[in-house]
Amino acid sequence: MRNIKLIVAYVGTAYHGFQKQPGGGTIQDVLEEFLSRVCGEPVRLAGSGRTDAGVHAKGQVVSFRTNGSIPAENIPRAALGLLPPDIAILKAEEADEDFHARFSAKSKEYSYVIANTPGPNPLLWDRRWFVGEKLDLELMGRGAEKLLGKHDFANFCSAGSEVSGTRRTVTKAEFFRQGEEITFAIAADGFLYHMVRNIVWALVQVGSGRWNLERFADCIDNPGNGIALEPAPAGGLYLEKVNY
Amino acid sequence: MRNIKLIVAYVGTAYHGFQKQPGGGTIQDVLEEFLSRVCGEPVRLAGSGRTDAGVHAKGQVVSFRTNGSIPAENIPRAALGLLPPDIAILKAEEADEDFHARFSAKSKEYSYVIANTPGPNPLLWDRRWFVGEKLDLELMGRGAEKLLGKHDFANFCSAGSEVSGTRRTVTKAEFFRQGEEITFAIAADGFLYHMVRNIVWALVQVGSGRWNLERFADCIDNPGNGIALEPAPAGGLYLEKVNY
Repeated sequence: MRNIKLIVAYVGTAYHGFQKQPGGGTIQDVLEEFLSRVCGEPVRLAGSGRTDAGVHAKGQVVSFRTNGSIPAENIPRAALGLLPPDIAILKAEEADEDFHARFSAKSKEYSYVIANTPGPNPLLWDRRWFVGEKLDLELMGRGAEKLLGKHDFANFCSAGSEVSGTRRTVTKAEFFRQGEEITFAIAADGFLYHMVRNIVWALVQVGSGRWNLERFADCIDNPGNGIALEPAPAGGLYLEKVNY
Repeated sequence: MRNIKLIVAYVGTAYHGFQKQPGGGTIQDVLEEFLSRVCGEPVRLAGSGRTDAGVHAKGQVVSFRTNGSIPAENIPRAALGLLPPDIAILKAEEADEDFHARFSAKSKEYSYVIANTPGPNPLLWDRRWFVGEKLDLELMGRGAEKLLGKHDFANFCSAGSEVSGTRRTVTKAEFFRQGEEITFAIAADGFLYHMVRNIVWALVQVGSGRWNLERFADCIDNPGNGIALEPAPAGGLYLEKVNY
């Protein structure tokens, strides 16, 4: 049986997240319907992980097994006509027999984009978090540095998670500004439920002066400190890349 | 009675165009519902002109008369909570008694954005026209120059238009490239139905080498020459500004 790996990009606005769920309307549903059609048999795929409703992806990875005969390199082109325009398959290739989009993943990279503008821009309503306050990016950067390394991120994991362990190793966490846009780039060996969005929200509290840096550091150093976090809006979050 | 002028921005993707029509789902419907609510009486507005389904605006102008007492400067803020996030009121002000968003307009400016990339980018699926071919921008610019001045643009007016005259004066028509993005900026004293989209489509034929410059010039010089045009996709078009 063949094992095929796809790199997928999508706008999450119109979907109930990546992962299949009762009621449908997920990106996985749309992809499986398409793949079943071009493979001539029912296809069930594995994603590298879920993305929530409204979260976007530039480099989500999925894998699936099939007896279908379509050459892998033809799949992106076939998808152009058969997938809705807010989902695209950027690349398709044969993968090793034991490759699995989720279990083989070594690390993931996300970006989160804040528009630091006085008012929201409706043209980007579902692609940014609009934060009107003045943000101290240097301070936010110092907070981000504290994320680096292996920590228990239990405080940054929203309720509803299914994972058991809450220790993760963060290998990149940095802010950069281009004009009015502030992008947060983070890489780790894995992410907890809402982890990036909770981190971004907390660092915006730091940048706006509502939190001091010590309060943020305490959320890393003392898992279970009881400080309530809120996830930043889904629309600012992009799954950039999955590394294997 | 007060006369109020609004500057409005929106993403057109989710709407059946700007102008009210049977069946609803237009930007005008949404704005009138909001304005009626904050003014405490039914409001009927006038837009500077229609934008088609899927066309966006950064500076659409509307005007309406009301006996409502809400201060004009409070309207944008009220809209933040009451309008959907893909429509925003950027500015509101009292206008002269005889101001009318449509009849007082002296000229309009549109931009059209082409993504000149090998494949479509799903993250911008409804905001760009994806053209994979190599485009000769210098040649397209020379074509654009021919639009300048007063011409009969009948060839660039799609069927279904209600306007009588087809002569318009174009005061700006130029292309510029930023990385993979090509933007066409055009200003005129008025636009015919699908005029910008038909122009962009024709100039892409020039840029790709399918049309020579003479064929494009003939569409301007000989109204009714019978050459068939197609409108470029709606999603690439932005109403930038209305001048009074």
